[in-house]
Amino acid sequence: MENGAESKWGFQVKQELKPAPAVTVRTSLASIIGSVNTNDPRPVISLGPGDPTTFPCFRTATEAEDAIVDAVRSANFNFLQLEDYLNRGLPYKLSPDDVYITLGCKQAIEVILTVLARPGANILLPRPGWPFYEGFANLKHLEVRHFDLLPEKGWEVDLDAVEALADENTVAMVIINPGNPCGNVFTCQHLQKIAETARKLRIMVIADEVYEHLTFGSTPYTPMGAFGSVVPVITVGSISKRWVVPGWRFGWLVTNDPNGILQKIGVVDSIKDCLSIYSDIPTFIQGAVPQILEKTKEDFFSKIIGILKESAELCYDRIKEIPCLTCPNKPEGSMFVMVKLNLSLLEDINDDSQFALKLAQEESVIVTPGETLGLGNWLRIAFSVEPSALEEGFGRIKAFCQRHSKPQ
Amino acid sequence: MENGAESKWGFQVKQELKPAPAVTVRTSLASIIGSVNTNDPRPVISLGPGDPTTFPCFRTATEAEDAIVDAVRSANFNFLQLEDYLNRGLPYKLSPDDVYITLGCKQAIEVILTVLARPGANILLPRPGWPFYEGFANLKHLEVRHFDLLPEKGWEVDLDAVEALADENTVAMVIINPGNPCGNVFTCQHLQKIAETARKLRIMVIADEVYEHLTFGSTPYTPMGAFGSVVPVITVGSISKRWVVPGWRFGWLVTNDPNGILQKIGVVDSIKDCLSIYSDIPTFIQGAVPQILEKTKEDFFSKIIGILKESAELCYDRIKEIPCLTCPNKPEGSMFVMVKLNLSLLEDINDDSQFALKLAQEESVIVTPGETLGLGNWLRIAFSVEPSALEEGFGRIKAFCQRHSKPQ
Repeated sequence: MENGAESKWGFQVKQELKPAPAVTVRTSLASIIGSVNTNDPRPVISLGPGDPTTFPCFRTATEAEDAIVDAVRSANFNFLQLEDYLNRGLPYKLSPDDVYITLGCKQAIEVILTVLARPGANILLPRPGWPFYEGFANLKHLEVRHFDLLPEKGWEVDLDAVEALADENTVAMVIINPGNPCGNVFTCQHLQKIAETARKLRIMVIADEVYEHLTFGSTPYTPMGAFGSVVPVITVGSISKRWVVPGWRFGWLVTNDPNGILQKIGVVDSIKDCLSIYSDIPTFIQGAVPQILEKTKEDFFSKIIGILKESAELCYDRIKEIPCLTCPNKPEGSMFVMVKLNLSLLEDINDDSQFALKLAQEESVIVTPGETLGLGNWLRIAFSVEPSALEEGFGRIKAFCQRHSKPQ
Repeated sequence: MENGAESKWGFQVKQELKPAPAVTVRTSLASIIGSVNTNDPRPVISLGPGDPTTFPCFRTATEAEDAIVDAVRSANFNFLQLEDYLNRGLPYKLSPDDVYITLGCKQAIEVILTVLARPGANILLPRPGWPFYEGFANLKHLEVRHFDLLPEKGWEVDLDAVEALADENTVAMVIINPGNPCGNVFTCQHLQKIAETARKLRIMVIADEVYEHLTFGSTPYTPMGAFGSVVPVITVGSISKRWVVPGWRFGWLVTNDPNGILQKIGVVDSIKDCLSIYSDIPTFIQGAVPQILEKTKEDFFSKIIGILKESAELCYDRIKEIPCLTCPNKPEGSMFVMVKLNLSLLEDINDDSQFALKLAQEESVIVTPGETLGLGNWLRIAFSVEPSALEEGFGRIKAFCQRHSKPQ
């Protein structure tokens, strides 16, 4: 192949392909993990990506594994109507036309953003948030506008900001409840205000409820779909978190819209079209889900919630003992909490990324810089780890912070 | 919700979302299947979608099922380097950076079309073809231009048409080999001509080799990657067809490009970015694949090939006995064959869609109208069915054609 002629190829990659924010968090974590000192004899403690499957105590229910085995062995599947499972807590009845199964929650997100994308459109995303929303929005050429979550108000949505950001090209706002990365649970009253704001702005609400059921605080969880008669709501979820099977990729997209607006204006047809060409969930996983839902015992769920609650409390208590860290709200759900970094108390650390990098190098502890999630000088800590490992991890974080403290 | 105000919502669905061709084939088949007479006591014989998993003789290898069970039970996975498996038949060595695992072949296609899409770009697709290419291209706003496959030349690519269609905005041409829907296998010489044409036009070749290994004719199969030094080639494939596990969703995308052009001009980075935000393959399926590749015995593959060869021959022979049908080439690969309909011999049938509809109504036999694949007045017949069912199906097709023949 002649040299220097590459520029003539017809398939130069366009510059616009930038799923950058999602890449950033993975790349950032990979570089933090890569900077761990391999001579450190202590085990690495990862409070970074939030993957509990590496710990035996978070192993999924035996009944769920049995269901997969039975489905593979039978090669004969009964598919499930999910409406009943998803209808809890809603003041109206979901129809089969409201529920679409998807390859995990990610495909549900991709589908709805594909449906909503059009030239000039914008979408409102929470800050801090889950950067895959920004990634998919970028891939779909949907402009992203961020509203803040307010730490001083329990990470509630800054609704004034939402009103200021929205215009006639705004297609939707996204909320994540229970919160990733904040670990909060929105009150019923706040969800109602979100619904009323969205109705006023005439935008739909996309409610990411993938952490539904993983709540352990004093705020009761309310599904956003409860306000589907105020404003059209699309919820996305999966079995990944409740059954601790993030790799099984069984998710759903639900239209919560008793007034039928999404149907009338073509969103529902467009969702169907989109799903008709995207990849299906592996057949035997689909086939296993009825048995997974039916057979898993309450004991399993309460065990998982028990461990997460213990870890969340341990996390909150240990942070209090470290002067340069502040956790404004005790986590009540999900597997994450945001922790504020007081840099003025530290001697040789300039920002959250440097904190995370040095912590990995010196203590073999991994945390996620808040900057990668839209909030600089905060850290995201995943507490979905065995309590003993979390205790050990905070011991090291404390030692690290003491070592880097400014002299008093 | 006030009536008449729907038009004011911010999320009107854009008109451009039209994964239409892919929808058309599914919708068309669904309406054909739906028109079967439920009072017909005979079983429905589906020669439509090409899903062999409904027949016991096509059940996957026990070793493959065992591998999934072992992976789920162990919850501890070794991931595979696929290069060795994919390197057969290539005159150079693939590196780990050439091979990307994907959620089935479909995600591989979606990724490469996402990477190549840019305003004004076009892609050359075969006609007849597999309409999901058109579907994904439409979703990505890639203009589609069709070149014909030539039945009188064993379904070879009309390379003159390719040259006439390409311009400076053409990013790639797609070939499917072994052929879906034509059942042909390209000769080594023809693949070389394709490579040289693409090189001259300075477009890459996307080679869909999902039916690799399912060949049973006299033309030896050559991977398109063998010509990667002539022109950059991206191949897509999966375990779906060889192991008869279409629902398992383990696929790959391979860059066959010893000159490193795809790397230099950003295609490789863009593929990585894209895959970093798309859904991963379910963990335990990934975990099972090393064992699936290692343990499946040659017996299984030869059994499957034996059945397909028998069915392909039976199909070809029976078509010869039906005056209004012509099969220009005996199938040598994949699971499909294209059959030409001579409407002048039929009394009350106007086109392929009507033929398929009436055949379903009167004989409970399902075939795919060629129109949905880009070639009107042809039919696609899937021969991935038990030979006895195929025999029965052709008996009914013959009776149907006799009944609808014009009087001599």
